[in-house]
Amino acid sequence: MKKNNAITPQEQDFSQWYTDVCTKAGLMDYSRVKGFIIYRPYGYAIWENIRNYLDEQFKLTGHENVYMPLLIPRSLLQKEAEHVEGFAPECAVVTQGGGKDLEEPLYVRPTSETLFCDHFKDILSSYRDLPIKYNQWCSVVRWEKTTRPFLRGSEFLWQEGHTLHRTEQEAREEALRMLRVYDNLGRDILAIPFLTGQKTDKEKFAGALETYTVEAIMKDGQALQCGTTHYFGQGFAEHYDIKYLDEDNTLKVPYQTSFGVSTRLIGAIIMEHGDDNGLVLPPYVAPLQVVIIPIRAANDPEVARRAHCLEDELKKLNIRCKIDFSDKTPGWKYAQYELMGVPLRIDIGPKDCQENKVMYVKRYNGEKGFYKFDENLAKVIAAEMETITRGMYAKALNFVNSHVHEVHTYDELADVILNGKGYAKMAWCGDQACEDEIKAKLNASSRCMPFDQTLIDDTCPICHKKAKKVVLFARSY
Amino acid sequence: MKKNNAITPQEQDFSQWYTDVCTKAGLMDYSRVKGFIIYRPYGYAIWENIRNYLDEQFKLTGHENVYMPLLIPRSLLQKEAEHVEGFAPECAVVTQGGGKDLEEPLYVRPTSETLFCDHFKDILSSYRDLPIKYNQWCSVVRWEKTTRPFLRGSEFLWQEGHTLHRTEQEAREEALRMLRVYDNLGRDILAIPFLTGQKTDKEKFAGALETYTVEAIMKDGQALQCGTTHYFGQGFAEHYDIKYLDEDNTLKVPYQTSFGVSTRLIGAIIMEHGDDNGLVLPPYVAPLQVVIIPIRAANDPEVARRAHCLEDELKKLNIRCKIDFSDKTPGWKYAQYELMGVPLRIDIGPKDCQENKVMYVKRYNGEKGFYKFDENLAKVIAAEMETITRGMYAKALNFVNSHVHEVHTYDELADVILNGKGYAKMAWCGDQACEDEIKAKLNASSRCMPFDQTLIDDTCPICHKKAKKVVLFARSY
Repeated sequence: MKKNNAITPQEQDFSQWYTDVCTKAGLMDYSRVKGFIIYRPYGYAIWENIRNYLDEQFKLTGHENVYMPLLIPRSLLQKEAEHVEGFAPECAVVTQGGGKDLEEPLYVRPTSETLFCDHFKDILSSYRDLPIKYNQWCSVVRWEKTTRPFLRGSEFLWQEGHTLHRTEQEAREEALRMLRVYDNLGRDILAIPFLTGQKTDKEKFAGALETYTVEAIMKDGQALQCGTTHYFGQGFAEHYDIKYLDEDNTLKVPYQTSFGVSTRLIGAIIMEHGDDNGLVLPPYVAPLQVVIIPIRAANDPEVARRAHCLEDELKKLNIRCKIDFSDKTPGWKYAQYELMGVPLRIDIGPKDCQENKVMYVKRYNGEKGFYKFDENLAKVIAAEMETITRGMYAKALNFVNSHVHEVHTYDELADVILNGKGYAKMAWCGDQACEDEIKAKLNASSRCMPFDQTLIDDTCPICHKKAKKVVLFARSY
Repeated sequence: MKKNNAITPQEQDFSQWYTDVCTKAGLMDYSRVKGFIIYRPYGYAIWENIRNYLDEQFKLTGHENVYMPLLIPRSLLQKEAEHVEGFAPECAVVTQGGGKDLEEPLYVRPTSETLFCDHFKDILSSYRDLPIKYNQWCSVVRWEKTTRPFLRGSEFLWQEGHTLHRTEQEAREEALRMLRVYDNLGRDILAIPFLTGQKTDKEKFAGALETYTVEAIMKDGQALQCGTTHYFGQGFAEHYDIKYLDEDNTLKVPYQTSFGVSTRLIGAIIMEHGDDNGLVLPPYVAPLQVVIIPIRAANDPEVARRAHCLEDELKKLNIRCKIDFSDKTPGWKYAQYELMGVPLRIDIGPKDCQENKVMYVKRYNGEKGFYKFDENLAKVIAAEMETITRGMYAKALNFVNSHVHEVHTYDELADVILNGKGYAKMAWCGDQACEDEIKAKLNASSRCMPFDQTLIDDTCPICHKKAKKVVLFARSY
């Protein structure tokens, strides 16, 4: 197998490159139902690693896991008008159960706000019960016309957090706290430098007062929304009649938030770090972190002995590793583990044994070198997981920094968008009409209003009215 | 709150006792759709603990996790006649998606054999690919007429393992190996002594050649099937056209198994160990393993200091614990944590501080005593988790042993069944007609043919034909 023949080069067709990586690295397969994919072991293990990290963070920030029903009665979904308008058209609807037509259709959950609200109404009674901070890991279904593995599917895996608070301030802090948890996930685990900020009214979640977002930029210059947190105020609580008796003996309505990330993060990892040889996985989510390739093991029993010894030591340090003793050639193995994006490759041959060293190759930058084969080797390799993560992050940050452009005129905006240069940072009047115009002319949307709102122009380049906000515009997945 | 006033006594109404425990201990709540429950934090955490243990065991036995689609096209479900007959009538059916009627109805998975088979057909090509050992954690939907929390629901959480093997022997071994994993879960983690064996043809899984089971006996004398493993032979593989090229260059059909346990195990824990004061949780699945109750903490700051100190030390040993500093009375707290089934309660008062000790109460048998308050206290308490598990297991085993009765006549069988004495162990001719007769007359079913098949009679007490097997009969959930 030649190194690159399995995968379409990114320059030639980025979209086909993406699909090739998804299928050929064994992340997923298609099912017989359009938009419903099979998460194969290698892809699902990445999600498990993301989930394990986040679940620990959620528990540290005081959240408890629950599981809500899969199906939502139509009447329950319809209680919040904006929400049902946003979701009902993309729902899968169960109309038969147990061989009979149902009296009321049941919607497969597209998100569970309505179920959580209904449950909160039942369980909340006193201010002593607050805050309530729940999270759920599940799959949701949204009927999509155009689907792509991990990025947009009719079914995807996600977590949805739902919280209730006594004060507005506490709820607002929660929405920002969970955004920081996502931002840390990007920085510490996925090696993805997120752009963070608030969504405009046009782009916010159906029913939210404020939506915050972590946005990534893919290697083709397009934006990818990777996670959102929402401050709901009291809107949902009022529609679903959620109340509690406060310390002053009066009934009050709590403040609410929600937050979520999905298997879309797997798509973000692929398009943030991948190259023409395939996947490049950040170590902390890689199902296989280190692969050991024995070279000419038949010529020298010491090769296998040292490979096993290193594998044992690495496993003691909880490094996910394996030795490939198969009868394939080293060249075939190199290409295979490059395709799979294994962060670190270790070669051990007879000469290395004599010289008490092993060769290493880092997947993300091709760096090659030698480690001493001594009692510290496993520790040295384990420490590389952090070094590689930081290296991948720095590389990705360079890319982000060179793909965010301040624009001051419509022509500059058009140049950034139409030539795939990434994000355009622009002053904006605050009117949706200008967002609509940009969408119509350039097929780009506002991604977020960054937290640093230092104005870069006095007027909006679109309508020339007074500028009120700074917004990032981009084409997006 | 009086100790028992919240819960109906078991003797008075076992079924109502069960429902009281489920709701009042905060394990679950009902949703607006019949048979679909909400897994509340305390109930869901029990499932998480079971899942974490099993997931590790599955990985140690070479299984990989995957995730299959939620929805199954009707045509796919219909490929195996016996299987579709068994499941189609209890399915929820999606007939609309994205606002339109679907061309082909989609079934919400009642189990995923058909999806796994279809995927296996796509990915299996060579004998080198075998064995394939997959597992999936998900929820499934089966429309049930009568539902009870955890025991029988229209939606429940489970895991389903699906494996393919090159030889019949290897597949048969896999079905028995996974039964042992379940049996160990019962013994080591749930403190439930399972009765194990093989299902009769009448009771086996739709499409299986052989079904193995772990069966428990509840405090009301009824049986509860807690987990099953199946040997499929080549039946599914043939219907779904799964083949591989063997070493001898001929196409062959692999041998298949599946295995699963569900949130029904939570029901088993409740009815195996619970009493009139509420839940009694085995330590390794208890969300809260130790509760520390400070007594008259206002009188002596040393009480709070020691409580915090102990809590810190226990947390370092990964013991799930908390201190209850609320303004409720100690009596209220005792009743509350008994209801919640917390395995070990520790009281610390001013007098205990002076005497360098703490009082303990074990939930499962009410044993009270004192531990020395010294640098070993946390370790002593951590070690009690195993002691309590073994004590609970021994108590449960006594119950099982006194509720399995050899019967040699129909009258003896009827006595065991009609008087709630548990399992009847009986010689059996092997004909389904006798099982049907017992079902019709006594509303009892064959639970399993135990692995020890030492015949206890020459003839079947029902038809008086030659006995071929020993079978356990019982009424069951």
